[in-house]
Amino acid sequence: MNDSETKLIDAAQRRLGPKGVITDPKEIEPWVTDWRGRVHGAAPAMLAPASTEEVIEVVKLAAEHRVPLVPQGGNTSMAAGATPPADGSAVLLSLRRLNRIRSISAENRLAVAEAGVILAMLHDAVKDVGMRFPLTLGARGSCTVGGLTSTNAGGTQVLKFGTMRALVTGLEAVLPDGSVHNGLSGLKKDNRGYSLDQLLIGAEGTLGVITAVALKLVPAIAGRAVAWVGVDSPGRALQLLRFFEAHTDAVEGFELVPEECLQLVIKHIRGTRSPLDGSHGWHVLIEATTSKPVIDIGGQLERLLGEALQSGLIGDAVVAASEAQAEAFWKIRDSISEAERAEGQMLAHDISVAVADMPAFLTDASAEVERAFPGVTATGFGHLGDGNIHFHVRAGNRAAPNWYEAEGLEITRFVDDLVTAAGGSISAEHGIGQLKRAELARLAPPGRIGALRAIKHALDPLGIMNPGKLVP
Amino acid sequence: MNDSETKLIDAAQRRLGPKGVITDPKEIEPWVTDWRGRVHGAAPAMLAPASTEEVIEVVKLAAEHRVPLVPQGGNTSMAAGATPPADGSAVLLSLRRLNRIRSISAENRLAVAEAGVILAMLHDAVKDVGMRFPLTLGARGSCTVGGLTSTNAGGTQVLKFGTMRALVTGLEAVLPDGSVHNGLSGLKKDNRGYSLDQLLIGAEGTLGVITAVALKLVPAIAGRAVAWVGVDSPGRALQLLRFFEAHTDAVEGFELVPEECLQLVIKHIRGTRSPLDGSHGWHVLIEATTSKPVIDIGGQLERLLGEALQSGLIGDAVVAASEAQAEAFWKIRDSISEAERAEGQMLAHDISVAVADMPAFLTDASAEVERAFPGVTATGFGHLGDGNIHFHVRAGNRAAPNWYEAEGLEITRFVDDLVTAAGGSISAEHGIGQLKRAELARLAPPGRIGALRAIKHALDPLGIMNPGKLVP
Repeated sequence: MNDSETKLIDAAQRRLGPKGVITDPKEIEPWVTDWRGRVHGAAPAMLAPASTEEVIEVVKLAAEHRVPLVPQGGNTSMAAGATPPADGSAVLLSLRRLNRIRSISAENRLAVAEAGVILAMLHDAVKDVGMRFPLTLGARGSCTVGGLTSTNAGGTQVLKFGTMRALVTGLEAVLPDGSVHNGLSGLKKDNRGYSLDQLLIGAEGTLGVITAVALKLVPAIAGRAVAWVGVDSPGRALQLLRFFEAHTDAVEGFELVPEECLQLVIKHIRGTRSPLDGSHGWHVLIEATTSKPVIDIGGQLERLLGEALQSGLIGDAVVAASEAQAEAFWKIRDSISEAERAEGQMLAHDISVAVADMPAFLTDASAEVERAFPGVTATGFGHLGDGNIHFHVRAGNRAAPNWYEAEGLEITRFVDDLVTAAGGSISAEHGIGQLKRAELARLAPPGRIGALRAIKHALDPLGIMNPGKLVP
Repeated sequence: MNDSETKLIDAAQRRLGPKGVITDPKEIEPWVTDWRGRVHGAAPAMLAPASTEEVIEVVKLAAEHRVPLVPQGGNTSMAAGATPPADGSAVLLSLRRLNRIRSISAENRLAVAEAGVILAMLHDAVKDVGMRFPLTLGARGSCTVGGLTSTNAGGTQVLKFGTMRALVTGLEAVLPDGSVHNGLSGLKKDNRGYSLDQLLIGAEGTLGVITAVALKLVPAIAGRAVAWVGVDSPGRALQLLRFFEAHTDAVEGFELVPEECLQLVIKHIRGTRSPLDGSHGWHVLIEATTSKPVIDIGGQLERLLGEALQSGLIGDAVVAASEAQAEAFWKIRDSISEAERAEGQMLAHDISVAVADMPAFLTDASAEVERAFPGVTATGFGHLGDGNIHFHVRAGNRAAPNWYEAEGLEITRFVDDLVTAAGGSISAEHGIGQLKRAELARLAPPGRIGALRAIKHALDPLGIMNPGKLVP
C-alpha cells in the first residue's frame, strides 16, 4: 500500500464508516480474481459506498489522491473487466451496497434500480407488479444492473428486446470530476446534446461510475412455448428464422446448436438426452412468448413448425409438452460450455457478424481454423438471430497439456482476423475488459482508437476510472 | 473572404471540381437562412462533395486551413442548427449530393442511405420492396437522413418506433481528424468500446460529418385506421392511451389537440371542419396500423373506442371511413402551427416531461404562463404518448406589434424554467442549434456542460465542426 492509497483509505473510513471500507485481505480476496478464475489482481482495499452521495465522496477522494478505482458489480465479467491490476495500484469500488430498487411503475413501464441490484432480484420485483424486465443471462443470480449496463450486456432474449443499450432509458452516474449526470427522468424525447447515457452504456466503468439505471419493462409473459428443431445447416436455420419473423412477433429466443455440441452435452451432463429421434446436423432451440392470455402460443408454434416441416425447411421438430421439458431443452443449450470443458481444453470466442453472413461464416471459419491448426475442432453455437455466436475451438485428445497457453493466442488471433475480415466484431456481448484489449489495439482502425483515447482523456484526465480496461 | 478561406476554396475546387464548390452568392443564398427565415448567416462558399472520399478531402482541407464547416442537409432545422455564422467565418458543407441509397434488404430489414437522401425518397424506395421506414415528419420532402440522424429527429410515429436513435443501427462519418468511422456493418451486437454511432446521433454535426446511415426497416403497412376522439382533459387522454396499450400494439400515433387549436384551424385553414358534433375540451387523433393483412385494424379500433365510450372514458369518437377522411383528420393536426400564426404572434416551445407528468404539466404550466403574462394564451398540443408537446404562447389581440421581440425571451425563459423544474427537456425533438444554446447554458448542470465541452474539444480540437452550435 503506497502513501496515496493509505491517505485515500483513511479519508474513506472517515466518510463511509467501517462498513464502507474493507481492508481485510480475506474479505477482498473473492473479488480480485475474475469470474473464470484466470486473471488475478490485487487491491489494498475495497470501498463499498451505500448511496450516490457516498460514491461522489469516493470519486472525489480518488481524484484528490490520484488513486484509480475499479468499479465492480457482481464480478461476472467474461473479459476480466472488473478485476484490479495485479500490482495493487488501484482500489476496488464495489457497488453492491447500492441495491435499492427506487421505483417500479407498471403504468409507465419503467423501473429505476441502483447499480448493485442483482438481475434475478429485479426480475422478481417487477414480476410482482405484473411486469417483466426482458433481459436475462446465465449469471442472473450474481450480475448487477450496473455491470449489465456498463458492459451493454446481451443474453438470450436480445432478438426481440435488444441489448441493455435498447432497454436503458437513462442512467445516473458519477463522472470522474465528481459531478453527477442524472438521466433518470424517464423522458422519451430529449435532444439537449450528446447522449451521456449512451456514452456510459458499454464504457465498462472507464468514464464514470453508474449508480442507478432506469429500465424499460414489458408486460409479464402470459404464455410460453419452447421447441427443439432439427435442420440440415445454419443456412436452413436462418431461413427458418425469417419464416417465423414473417408470421409472428412472438419469437424471442432462437439458439443454434450443432450436433456435436448436443452429443457432448449428452455425454457429459447428467440427465440430458436428445430431444429428437434420429440425427440432425444442426439444431435450433426456439422460444416464443406472448403477454396476451388469449393467444395460444404453443398452437401457433406447432402450426408454423408443421408448415416448415411440410415444405422441407426442417427435418424434425418437437414442442415441449411441459414446463419441465422446456427447461430440459434450455438445459442442453446452457450446458454446452460446461460439456466442452469436460471434454478437454477449449478456447472461447464471443463474436458477431451480420446476421445474413453468419451461416457462411460458421461453415467457412470452422473449416479454415481446422485446416490451419490440425487436430482442433471449431464450432459455433448460440444467438443466430443476433448474428452472435460463441465460436469455440477445442484442442482434441492428442493436444499437449499446455495447449491453451502454447497455441491459444495464435488461434485467437487467427479467429479474430477471420471475424474482422468478415466485417464482424471480436466482442459481441462480453466487452473488451483486460482480455481483449490487445486484440482491439491490433485490429481497430487507428482513427477509432484515437477517438476512444480522446474521449477517455477528456472525461477522465487523471486516469482514475478502471485503469487498464477497454481503451487500448 | 479571408486568406484562409480563399486557400480552402481554391484547394477544394482542384479536388472536387466545379460542381463541388459553389461561390455564386445567388446560389448560396437560399441555404444561409434558416427554415423559419429568422436567422441569417453568410458563407463565402458552399462545398458539395459527392462521395465519402470527397468529404474526407474537405474535412482535411478545413483542418489544414482552420476554416470551420457547417454541415447541412435539407436546411430544415427548427433551431438554426445548419445556418452559418453571420460574419462569414465558416463555409457551408452541403451533403445533398451524397444521395445514393447504397442498399435495401427486405430480408435483413435494413437500408443503407447516404446522408443527402431525402426522407420522402427513402420512404418510396423501401416501399418498392414491401418495407417501410417508420419515421416521418412534416419536412419529409426536404429533410435528409443525415440531418435527421444528426438531430435525433422524432416526428409523429415515435410512440411505436422511437426516434432516430432507435432506428439507426450504425453510421459512417468523417471525424474532424479526417479519419472515417464505419459503423455500417449492420452488427446487432458489438461491444468494442464507446459507441461512436450513438455519440454522433444528435450531435448536430459538431463532432464530425455523417456521410451514410444504416436504418432499420419494418414491414409495410397492410392496414391503417385513424380516429378522432373527444375527451374531457389531458388526463383522460392519457388514460385512453394506457387503455389502448393494454389491448393492442397497433397504436403508432396519439396526438393531443386542445379545442381552441381545433377552432383556430377551422377558422383559418380552408376546407377543414370539426370531425365530431358538439364541443369537447380536448381531442385525440389516433393512428393504428398493422403489417398483417388478416387483421381488421379498423374494426379493432372501433371496438376499443366503443368500450372506452361505454365506460365514460371518452366523450365521443369517429373512425375515418375513408383514406380522404383520415387525411382530413391529419390535416387538422398538421395545420395547427399555421393556424396559430394566422391568428397572430406566437412563440413555440418544443418541450418534454415524463409521460405520466404531462397532463398536470399542461394544465399547470398554461395557467402559470397566463397569470405571469396577462393577455397571452398558452396551450400545448402534440405527441402526448412521448411526453412531448409543442407548447405555444399566443400574444392575443391587444399585443404590441413588437411583442415577439419585446417579451419573447422573457416568456421563453419562464416556460423553460417550468419545464426544468418539472424534470423535463427544453428541447424534446428540435435540438439546440443556435436558438437554444443560451438556454442550455443557463439551465444545464455545470457538470453536464463541462462534459459536453470536454467531448467536443477532444474530438474537434481545432473547432472546425459546426461552430457556435449545440455546445454552450
